[in-house]
Amino acid sequence: MKLMEEKILTEGKVLPGGILKVGSFLNQQIDTVFLKQMGDEIARLFGSQGVTKVLTIEASGIAIAAAAGISLGVPMVFAKKHKTSNVDGSVYSSVVHSYTHNTDYNIVVSSDYLLPGDKVLLVDDFLANGKALEGLMDLCAQAGAQVAGVSVAIEKGFQGGGDRLRAKGVRVESLAVIDAMNENGIVFRK
Amino acid sequence: MKLMEEKILTEGKVLPGGILKVGSFLNQQIDTVFLKQMGDEIARLFGSQGVTKVLTIEASGIAIAAAAGISLGVPMVFAKKHKTSNVDGSVYSSVVHSYTHNTDYNIVVSSDYLLPGDKVLLVDDFLANGKALEGLMDLCAQAGAQVAGVSVAIEKGFQGGGDRLRAKGVRVESLAVIDAMNENGIVFRK
Repeated sequence: MKLMEEKILTEGKVLPGGILKVGSFLNQQIDTVFLKQMGDEIARLFGSQGVTKVLTIEASGIAIAAAAGISLGVPMVFAKKHKTSNVDGSVYSSVVHSYTHNTDYNIVVSSDYLLPGDKVLLVDDFLANGKALEGLMDLCAQAGAQVAGVSVAIEKGFQGGGDRLRAKGVRVESLAVIDAMNENGIVFRK
Repeated sequence: MKLMEEKILTEGKVLPGGILKVGSFLNQQIDTVFLKQMGDEIARLFGSQGVTKVLTIEASGIAIAAAAGISLGVPMVFAKKHKTSNVDGSVYSSVVHSYTHNTDYNIVVSSDYLLPGDKVLLVDDFLANGKALEGLMDLCAQAGAQVAGVSVAIEKGFQGGGDRLRAKGVRVESLAVIDAMNENGIVFRK
């Protein structure tokens, strides 16, 4: 998505440690005109795949997953990072390792909202090592749901998670793939 | 919003302790067709008020705030509950007491995304005691931004937070106001 690359180049900021700051339009302040365009693009990519549900993880995946759900016309579900008191009944859960915070956390989704027969599109803001998406795939497997594919706003191609998923046969569509970046520039995958 | 009352009656579940579970359409699984209607309704209510930004708190406010932002055509910003490593520069922060979890937490927003001159619409899924919204109003005051009003999906009128804000002169528009509820039924405000 050319527009995503342009937004990253004009508004993104590369920080030391492989961090790309896109808080001005993607994950703290959200450009809602662009958000709707992202949702439409994801719907264009996966609209013919029989997707029944969009699944993401709180918090920064929610806006883009909601936009994708609106454009696809299907419900959006987000996994929570902690089991909260108002999820009753049984849940599916998986452990995810965060390299950013060097810690493990649980992701949890009520079994009411992920069903056998669902065809699930996984959506997130970033794809780096792919651990969060592997956790979501684990939740889908527990539910007996099928994974239609993965769509993320920005893939850090140099961290390899996206290509590992592709090697397993998962369709991964990233709106921009960064193959290299530092303070001097960003190289997008052709 | 009649449709919100209908959704609460058909899909909501009242649990002991004043908890209304609406995870099937509002805050774990999100009905995206309905989400867009909520955004349109909020835009109808506040569209002529010169709103420049929608502000919410992660995580369950993000989807409805994004929908409101899309319908209003203005950016959406969400306050984070912890200061994370990729918010650089200065931030505004406020302490919020959660009655649900009986704990205090910090809400933080980068000063880059809340500006003097902004006219901010505060959006959230629930309004109960109003502590989260008071925290957001505090962030706006620190930024020198004006609060255009508050719009939430569901107000628990019996907990008084919404009426306390109205008594201070804040325009509060809730898509449904519940004045009483228990396992046997729900009474909406006329």
